Amino acid sequence: MTETMVPPGLKGVVVTTTELGDVRGEEGFFHYRQHSAVELARTRSLEDVWFLLHRGRLPSPAELDAFRAEVAAARALPTAVVDLLPALAGLPPLAGLRTALSLLGGRPVYDASVEERAADALRVCALTPTVLAALHRVRSGLDPLAPRDDLDAAANWLWVLHGRLPDDEHVAALRRYLVATVDHGFNASTFTARVVASTGADVVSAVVAALGAFSGPLHGGAPDRALAALEEIGTPERAPAWVRAQLAAGGRVMGFGHAVYRTEDPRSVLLRETALALGGPLVELAVDVEQRVVQTLTELKPGRRLHANVEYYAGVVMSLCGLEPSLFTPTFATSRVVGWTANVLEQATDPRIIRPSARYVGPEPRR
Amino acid sequence: MTETMVPPGLKGVVVTTTELGDVRGEEGFFHYRQHSAVELARTRSLEDVWFLLHRGRLPSPAELDAFRAEVAAARALPTAVVDLLPALAGLPPLAGLRTALSLLGGRPVYDASVEERAADALRVCALTPTVLAALHRVRSGLDPLAPRDDLDAAANWLWVLHGRLPDDEHVAALRRYLVATVDHGFNASTFTARVVASTGADVVSAVVAALGAFSGPLHGGAPDRALAALEEIGTPERAPAWVRAQLAAGGRVMGFGHAVYRTEDPRSVLLRETALALGGPLVELAVDVEQRVVQTLTELKPGRRLHANVEYYAGVVMSLCGLEPSLFTPTFATSRVVGWTANVLEQATDPRIIRPSARYVGPEPRR
Repeated sequence: MTETMVPPGLKGVVVTTTELGDVRGEEGFFHYRQHSAVELARTRSLEDVWFLLHRGRLPSPAELDAFRAEVAAARALPTAVVDLLPALAGLPPLAGLRTALSLLGGRPVYDASVEERAADALRVCALTPTVLAALHRVRSGLDPLAPRDDLDAAANWLWVLHGRLPDDEHVAALRRYLVATVDHGFNASTFTARVVASTGADVVSAVVAALGAFSGPLHGGAPDRALAALEEIGTPERAPAWVRAQLAAGGRVMGFGHAVYRTEDPRSVLLRETALALGGPLVELAVDVEQRVVQTLTELKPGRRLHANVEYYAGVVMSLCGLEPSLFTPTFATSRVVGWTANVLEQATDPRIIRPSARYVGPEPRR
Repeated sequence: MTETMVPPGLKGVVVTTTELGDVRGEEGFFHYRQHSAVELARTRSLEDVWFLLHRGRLPSPAELDAFRAEVAAARALPTAVVDLLPALAGLPPLAGLRTALSLLGGRPVYDASVEERAADALRVCALTPTVLAALHRVRSGLDPLAPRDDLDAAANWLWVLHGRLPDDEHVAALRRYLVATVDHGFNASTFTARVVASTGADVVSAVVAALGAFSGPLHGGAPDRALAALEEIGTPERAPAWVRAQLAAGGRVMGFGHAVYRTEDPRSVLLRETALALGGPLVELAVDVEQRVVQTLTELKPGRRLHANVEYYAGVVMSLCGLEPSLFTPTFATSRVVGWTANVLEQATDPRIIRPSARYVGPEPRR
């Protein structure tokens, strides 16, 4: 077999084509299909974008109503998972979700039609917030709550967690966060989902695999770490010394810098604006600290163009919406699962398995 | 970011270097580290090769004894899984295993040392046969059996399934099968495990992901399909017509052909020899049908050099060892998990995430 040499870690290697969207790192722009993701986050619900990614275009109002009804019908917790909640509640949230989804399983892969695969994808996305919220409530000594069919994904998420009808401004802020984090290029969990899907495996297998990659510290996307850093800094004046101490100790400054963006992260810009609209002392602290951290990073690492990334204001926005830090990553998962499954459905249209090579560099074998 | 164009499906693209082994498709040879895999299968136990892949070299007799004791101590079914067996027994075997492993979880990835990761890898490999056998027995209305510390992996596997001490010749045959199927280049499940491990995720996350890829029909490795085909053919005389009918209907001939080997599959050669040593009418049928299928395929697809692959005689050998077809793939998993985890441990020494790109080919987005 002919070997092809590529950059380490497959960086920049084009594995496949996609019609789902793209991240333009130099422009600070990302899109879902032909729509600016930030514009969608300002104007649309998670269900709109879910429909867009899974079905190819934005829904009409009637289609959106029908889609919401479909999602609502798929939200209820299956009995098998209800029975297992006490055993799962002791796990980290994503491991609990992964185990519940694994228990439910997918349709036998030899038989599933395109329509059945799409139905499985919808079900996994609809169940994810229900399972995560039930695990959170059981862990907190509370009974799980039934999802509310009259609420959209953002409002329902706050409902199933807290059992209170949330304020409109918090729903609107969370809706923006969810839409802005549905998909973002070929990150490691999305790529994992596509590799598994390329074997012909079922949707659940691909999502379960993606959840494993998502848990890795190099994957990024842990908004609780950025908020923890903000709280550790405490007052703006302490930011420069804190940054210097982090870098001197060989650590990273959580919430700053991105593998792809060379500009401000457009999600960070959107979420800063969203946080400012909600207002309050945490937002003021965050904005002030951001400026000082960027200034200090520019002095210490000139030319690196380090900016706040999605994690930084994500934690602030979620905190203002009444979510505790242990719920930040689960909240992220409720939107990203829509992106993973969209990628699985697209990958399933390609009959090729993704199967690269490795080069053996050990001692020559004896024959 | 600079884009690199490569063959579809990453075919032949070198993702990483490895010291674990290689498959030389043109030579019909594969090796684990610097040892011929077929030679190891003739002379060594699964534990020898497990030690070789996880720790870098073959063990001394004293090291092997100590390693067997370590494995034996890690085999017992944890209470959390025992409680869950009735719920898991209704799933396909690999989905049941995946759910049980997911429930056990891995050590928090931020904290795990190299030694802890190795211990997690050993535990996953030691538990895999125990979980799969317990699921099989519960499914069959029987109580799970405790593993036997005095038996090696091959004999213990037959013990925990059937509760009988197996014949030496069956243990020897199964041992060959297990050693010959531990690892085999960068197949899709192994690659999946490495992608997940490259994010820094725990061993369990990587194995759970690999099990998903392993379940995909394009992954191959379903020895029960090949035996089913053999039984469908029934008598050697019907083989040519059966092959013609399969190909005319656009189907594949299960058990024949391989993505990498252009010679006889060395695993197939080994397992044919192993089956012939066990003897009996099924082996005679298999050998006769193999010759006629190859002859017919050579006529129908000249130049393709299609041979029996590992699936073909794997099913025959396992069947002769008293394993029913639903246990073929679980048996395969008990050896391949050693390869997956060896790859996870090797990947964990590389600080780079595996994160390729996709090219957007949809309509130009509106700004």
